[in-house]
Amino acid sequence: MIVVMKVGSSDEEITGVIKRIESAGLKAHVSPGVERTIIGVVGQIFPELQDMLEMLHGVDEVIRVSKPYKLSSREFHPLDTKVKIGGITIGGKEIVVMAGPCAVESEQQLLETAKAVKAAGATILRGGAFKPSTSPYQFRGLGEHGLKLLAHVKKEIGLPIITEVMTPGEVGMVAKYSDILQVGARNMQNFNLLEEVGKTGKPVMLKRGLSATIQEWLLAAEYVLAQGNEQLILCERGIRTFETYTRNTIDISVIPIIEKVSHLPIIADPSHGTGKWYLVTPVALAAVAAGADGIMVEVHPHPDLALKDGAQSLTFANFQQLMSQLKSVADAVGRHVAGYAVEAEP
Amino acid sequence: MIVVMKVGSSDEEITGVIKRIESAGLKAHVSPGVERTIIGVVGQIFPELQDMLEMLHGVDEVIRVSKPYKLSSREFHPLDTKVKIGGITIGGKEIVVMAGPCAVESEQQLLETAKAVKAAGATILRGGAFKPSTSPYQFRGLGEHGLKLLAHVKKEIGLPIITEVMTPGEVGMVAKYSDILQVGARNMQNFNLLEEVGKTGKPVMLKRGLSATIQEWLLAAEYVLAQGNEQLILCERGIRTFETYTRNTIDISVIPIIEKVSHLPIIADPSHGTGKWYLVTPVALAAVAAGADGIMVEVHPHPDLALKDGAQSLTFANFQQLMSQLKSVADAVGRHVAGYAVEAEP
Amino acid sequence: MIVVMKVGSSDEEITGVIKRIESAGLKAHVSPGVERTIIGVVGQIFPELQDMLEMLHGVDEVIRVSKPYKLSSREFHPLDTKVKIGGITIGGKEIVVMAGPCAVESEQQLLETAKAVKAAGATILRGGAFKPSTSPYQFRGLGEHGLKLLAHVKKEIGLPIITEVMTPGEVGMVAKYSDILQVGARNMQNFNLLEEVGKTGKPVMLKRGLSATIQEWLLAAEYVLAQGNEQLILCERGIRTFETYTRNTIDISVIPIIEKVSHLPIIADPSHGTGKWYLVTPVALAAVAAGADGIMVEVHPHPDLALKDGAQSLTFANFQQLMSQLKSVADAVGRHVAGYAVEAEP
Amino acid sequence: MIVVMKVGSSDEEITGVIKRIESAGLKAHVSPGVERTIIGVVGQIFPELQDMLEMLHGVDEVIRVSKPYKLSSREFHPLDTKVKIGGITIGGKEIVVMAGPCAVESEQQLLETAKAVKAAGATILRGGAFKPSTSPYQFRGLGEHGLKLLAHVKKEIGLPIITEVMTPGEVGMVAKYSDILQVGARNMQNFNLLEEVGKTGKPVMLKRGLSATIQEWLLAAEYVLAQGNEQLILCERGIRTFETYTRNTIDISVIPIIEKVSHLPIIADPSHGTGKWYLVTPVALAAVAAGADGIMVEVHPHPDLALKDGAQSLTFANFQQLMSQLKSVADAVGRHVAGYAVEAEP
Repeated sequence: MIVVMKVGSSDEEITGVIKRIESAGLKAHVSPGVERTIIGVVGQIFPELQDMLEMLHGVDEVIRVSKPYKLSSREFHPLDTKVKIGGITIGGKEIVVMAGPCAVESEQQLLETAKAVKAAGATILRGGAFKPSTSPYQFRGLGEHGLKLLAHVKKEIGLPIITEVMTPGEVGMVAKYSDILQVGARNMQNFNLLEEVGKTGKPVMLKRGLSATIQEWLLAAEYVLAQGNEQLILCERGIRTFETYTRNTIDISVIPIIEKVSHLPIIADPSHGTGKWYLVTPVALAAVAAGADGIMVEVHPHPDLALKDGAQSLTFANFQQLMSQLKSVADAVGRHVAGYAVEAEP
Repeated sequence: MIVVMKVGSSDEEITGVIKRIESAGLKAHVSPGVERTIIGVVGQIFPELQDMLEMLHGVDEVIRVSKPYKLSSREFHPLDTKVKIGGITIGGKEIVVMAGPCAVESEQQLLETAKAVKAAGATILRGGAFKPSTSPYQFRGLGEHGLKLLAHVKKEIGLPIITEVMTPGEVGMVAKYSDILQVGARNMQNFNLLEEVGKTGKPVMLKRGLSATIQEWLLAAEYVLAQGNEQLILCERGIRTFETYTRNTIDISVIPIIEKVSHLPIIADPSHGTGKWYLVTPVALAAVAAGADGIMVEVHPHPDLALKDGAQSLTFANFQQLMSQLKSVADAVGRHVAGYAVEAEP
Repeated sequence: MIVVMKVGSSDEEITGVIKRIESAGLKAHVSPGVERTIIGVVGQIFPELQDMLEMLHGVDEVIRVSKPYKLSSREFHPLDTKVKIGGITIGGKEIVVMAGPCAVESEQQLLETAKAVKAAGATILRGGAFKPSTSPYQFRGLGEHGLKLLAHVKKEIGLPIITEVMTPGEVGMVAKYSDILQVGARNMQNFNLLEEVGKTGKPVMLKRGLSATIQEWLLAAEYVLAQGNEQLILCERGIRTFETYTRNTIDISVIPIIEKVSHLPIIADPSHGTGKWYLVTPVALAAVAAGADGIMVEVHPHPDLALKDGAQSLTFANFQQLMSQLKSVADAVGRHVAGYAVEAEP
Repeated sequence: MIVVMKVGSSDEEITGVIKRIESAGLKAHVSPGVERTIIGVVGQIFPELQDMLEMLHGVDEVIRVSKPYKLSSREFHPLDTKVKIGGITIGGKEIVVMAGPCAVESEQQLLETAKAVKAAGATILRGGAFKPSTSPYQFRGLGEHGLKLLAHVKKEIGLPIITEVMTPGEVGMVAKYSDILQVGARNMQNFNLLEEVGKTGKPVMLKRGLSATIQEWLLAAEYVLAQGNEQLILCERGIRTFETYTRNTIDISVIPIIEKVSHLPIIADPSHGTGKWYLVTPVALAAVAAGADGIMVEVHPHPDLALKDGAQSLTFANFQQLMSQLKSVADAVGRHVAGYAVEAEP
């Protein structure tokens, strides 16, 4: 932590800052500049210190130097984390595709979709049983019945499952059925929920909040990791900007940034990230070209009849086409799509 | 709902849209334009319809005309809602000031602050027992012990209490102690929490999410109102923008907008809205000049020693000064500060 | 400037950074921390240095400590700048009101408006002759003919004039007619234009760009000041955010921030800042409550017939009402509205 | 254009709106709904009409249905525009790479870079002679001398040139030397400049403004096209968001959106879009995977000594590597990199 003094700060003010630092059990390292004095703080810094120092007389600014996240940081954990679900690894060479309907609507809808996405090369089945809905008057999911349908179709088709959990009290129930626990964008800073999913020890996928900085996202990840659960996947699904043509704006550069600053795998969700089905394929390809470890895509037998997010869902035919292009792009960047590879090995 | 067809859409496409509308039990009202045809949808519209129609051939855009929020809308509820807490009314002529420490730290800290803010004219005591914290390594509040301190100080000093509740499972506990249940910005779309606080029937204060549009905010309010609880206050506390000088950007115009489109009272929180103590007073005055029904302000006996948000907390002296200026501005816009008025009547 | 080394950077890397700093004629001041080493750069820093150091091996981040703006900074120029236009001072105790139509449309429209706003207490007449227009198919102003109408009405009514100049080649022409040269939001970083208006020595009003940070705004101001022209007024007119209810989002806290970090006067434009006439008055009152030195407001005899920005223009009656409330709020914060004060002194 | 009346609007109010529409020479088409009446406006709509109607009594909202841009719209111009520079076509099957230093610094720097980027497969040389600079104290380019160096190196090496023009008065001079006229992000709404570059008839590249919506960008394009100049390329270079890790946030989805709504070619600038050299390659690959017609990249012989934007410049070696990966990704999406193709033909 560095304290930047105002231009023309007095010796008393500088001494005041030094004393405050020392009274916190830390060392002050004074560096007089041409224009202004800078004081480095050396020792085990606690976050509140910044506010405390900023309020002292003569202080212009306090700058934090060390990163507030540790467990999710590559600096302290250089090797890539690999998340294992059944025989699938997320965070290695393979590109993992999670696909399925936005919301579970019926056994038939889910089964039909599961078959289609598996045939096209998806290796994880997505489907929401508990759906966050901006309006209380919209469809909010089938609840535990939806979970049971997921479990049933998993058994039938053989794809592991990812589904969202929205509240701490339901973590146990969802964990009983699901292979990966998804924490949605609106809950990225639902700290009680983060701790609960952390405690299960199960793989967790943490979506980035609509207006979350990279640092806030990694600090949210820290809540899960701090429970001793390292099976954590990050998912970029678009941030909120001034542009309203798309539902959200996919931050494509966050993919190589996460790879640089963190050891956690990262996937992209172009369905929520764009909100329009005809943008899903180009953005999915872009994500993999940029280094994503996988994608999550909404697929529906009849998008025009979907109870939720039809406009961003792919038909089976569109999904097949996406998979075929994805395979090429994955190969172009020295990786391969998980499902395809398996099929390719006779 | 209005369906805008593409330039040059065919008769088949237009007929397709009409059929889809009619199959949903609604009427289509076709209006051929110079450039393109427009089709109005008449009847009881359901939200999913937009997605469904947008995917049909020949459709360029589907525009929603009716507002998705009803219970919070002034169109359907013209009279101002007044929230009553003890003898205090929020949403009438009076400007209500909620003040106190960001976090409850100790009995002494809370008691001392309560006395000071009451003496200066505040009529509601704020103080956090459960604190959302971006990092798991920061102070997260005293929990139920903090609630007990709040209840104790309330009894001692006579100010009603507002405190935050973060998770559905704790609503009952917090409701036992607090006069107003605060839902924080990070939880604005924690729908389970909204329903739980709605069910208590107790006054609720709903902060605007960091990246919430006005419509999303009113839809979140709708979750509370839909439980039959009309004792709801909105609180603007700043939105996230590209500007980083302040913690957030207070959206001052939202105050007269809410007054126009909703019947709910609205207050402003310049402490979180700016993140810097020296901006709190000018922004508080601005909020009242713009028509806010009250303000919420963080006050601490020793901001430089605060465990949370010291940099945005006022000292007792600064708070007194704020109150004195606030009184003048309130008078200037034909209102008066609640606490002061009482003191002014001998 | 401070160089933050990576955790575990080697001695060679540290030496490399020191050598690079010294080769630029500056001194390096090394401060070994618990986690990582920090190197302070002492001497006359040039902006390119940051990029240069950031690219060296072992460097995690380079943080700029000194502010890049000097001439506009209060640190180097503690006293308030007062801009004088005729007998009017902007930046002192008085609140200055600039009012008039968005665009000059005709002599009658301008004359009528000028009389009305003067009678209501405005002291500067605004009116656009060159209008930036998002679409090439919209009204773009009367050009020099509009300037002549402004000059004519100025003579007739006695109010000084502010009008926009859009391109360096027209600065001379506009300066011949106008008392204040306005640089619009879209041109905030039109650096050639900034230098040209700076060279005239005439008062300049610089609007904040739609997505300009405070620092970028002050650096744009620096371009004008660097020409030796200190007669500069800043104008907040709203920034672009995700919220679309309003045309832009007025950043109310920028008013006290500018007062703190700069010596330049600041006014607010609630007409462009909100885009809706019914929000103009509450936001104007808020701006003055927050410390603005004045406001700029669009007034039109028949807003529903205006060729530009009718929806954000006040009628004469609405403007009178605004002025009356503004007077009260100005008094409440220890200032007074310029026009009114004059009228009050018989 | 559609006028949405308030719930409960009176017959007089509805008649008032109809009269206003008819007095503008247009037809009103009334559609009574369950909740509220909607009035369609049929005829040749002018942009000011929206404001005018919005102010009438009983009107809740006026919604624009037709797109305000025409010349840049695919609806009115279905075939792709192809921009030709020498033997190169932008907007066809080929991916075009523009590369070179941010700023022209010297003959040697430019010549060396031109050779290197040509050898690696770039087909257009970029280099700034007039540089927009946020601060007046930074390097602002060599001016006409820089243009002469560009022309000299073009002759020497045989690559066509793209360089920025910043002000209408310099368009003639820049057009004398450059093959493509670049309009920078800060000048996207410098309407005089747009018209001047339009008049030259030369190829123009229009960067998206930092906070420009897609519609505003296409309207800016309209200014160029309206001069009869159809040789126009769009360039996405990042928008301003709350995220500060990157200089800007590349909006990857804008690439397929432009392809859908416009016939103009679009390229991406990952150097300015990210501000960090290590993000340039992944984002360049993503842009091509998403459908971009080309990329523009900054390359410098010694980024750590660059006078401008060193931190986002690639070394020759990094650029070679980018080109090699780009080739694979282009192939994967059914296109090919222009330069490489040439080399492939023996």
